[in-house]
Amino acid sequence: MSDILERLEAVLDERRHADPQSSYVASLHHKGLNKILEKVGEEATEALLAAKDAETGGEAERHALVAETADLWFHSLVMLSHLDISHRAVLEELARRFGMSGLDEKAARQ
Amino acid sequence: MSDILERLEAVLDERRHADPQSSYVASLHHKGLNKILEKVGEEATEALLAAKDAETGGEAERHALVAETADLWFHSLVMLSHLDISHRAVLEELARRFGMSGLDEKAARQ
Amino acid sequence: MSDILERLEAVLDERRHADPQSSYVASLHHKGLNKILEKVGEEATEALLAAKDAETGGEAERHALVAETADLWFHSLVMLSHLDISHRAVLEELARRFGMSGLDEKAARQ
Amino acid sequence: MSDILERLEAVLDERRHADPQSSYVASLHHKGLNKILEKVGEEATEALLAAKDAETGGEAERHALVAETADLWFHSLVMLSHLDISHRAVLEELARRFGMSGLDEKAARQ
Repeated sequence: MSDILERLEAVLDERRHADPQSSYVASLHHKGLNKILEKVGEEATEALLAAKDAETGGEAERHALVAETADLWFHSLVMLSHLDISHRAVLEELARRFGMSGLDEKAARQ
Repeated sequence: MSDILERLEAVLDERRHADPQSSYVASLHHKGLNKILEKVGEEATEALLAAKDAETGGEAERHALVAETADLWFHSLVMLSHLDISHRAVLEELARRFGMSGLDEKAARQ
Repeated sequence: MSDILERLEAVLDERRHADPQSSYVASLHHKGLNKILEKVGEEATEALLAAKDAETGGEAERHALVAETADLWFHSLVMLSHLDISHRAVLEELARRFGMSGLDEKAARQ
Repeated sequence: MSDILERLEAVLDERRHADPQSSYVASLHHKGLNKILEKVGEEATEALLAAKDAETGGEAERHALVAETADLWFHSLVMLSHLDISHRAVLEELARRFGMSGLDEKAARQ
């Protein structure tokens, strides 16, 4: 499950230099950082609205929130990729804050 | 590396019902969904500004972007947790979109 | 100058019930509150990015910020209109906070 | 009513150079553009959430939306002020888009 971010990053790196006319990811990089950040802002807004609707809604609203959060994470990965930063740096920062050492990590895998 | 989200979710689930006076996560849940969403919006804004500064900045600005993206992901995990949705649903949605099947996933782990 | 908001509100009220196929304002109302709020979030993001660029840019960047702020205010007026709230309530709130009484207001007009 | 923005701008210009320890406006300028933009982003988020609650709520929720929109406009005025742009440029842009000429404006005042 958790290798998905790893594999998604590989896909994003590959598509970054693809033809902007056939790849959405390439088209975002081609338009530049502001366009990518506009998408991050848009998806954050849509995730908030979806969360409000999910609070009182049913399965459709809950799935919509999952889809919007996926959009938000996806575009934040494109943002990192555009600036040559790996998502691993973000995960390491989260691990550091929560006191999950590399050794604990290793032990937890077994 | 990639188990970090898995383990962070376990930490968040545990702290959700902790004492709001001693746990930041518990205090967010106690204040309710709007407070959590305000934080998601705030952190999205701070990530955008950090990305603009990272584009022209040096290592300090790049690390600030990593920290702000960690904040954004962290608070979006709290949002999902508040609505009893696992981050796995988001990763599955991303995998589905990028044509990464469960079997490929399994193979990739070996 | 300052009657512009007053007159813009009148235009927005009139267009609210126009044909969604010919009026952008009518199409926003037709799509509902979430669509309008997505636009407010989008325009807020674009204004922030434009402000960052205006800080170091020239006249083109400064004009872009003016245009994005106009978009933000415009869509927040549509939001208020959708919920049958006048922009005057917002101006009154601002006046109240800054200790500008109605009488001062009247005196200032002369 | 509509002179409120004009007068608020005068207040903001005056407070910009006040003591950051006694004036909120001065403290924002002192902290710099990023801090001001963070506030614009925060207030935009809070306005969206308030609008969602106002849609199904009563008078308290409607007043909260008015207050949050006032916060959003206020901080966008501080943003303009920080970059030495008058709110009049934004109103002129809105007037231009909606075909309200200066002459119409003048006629409408009488």
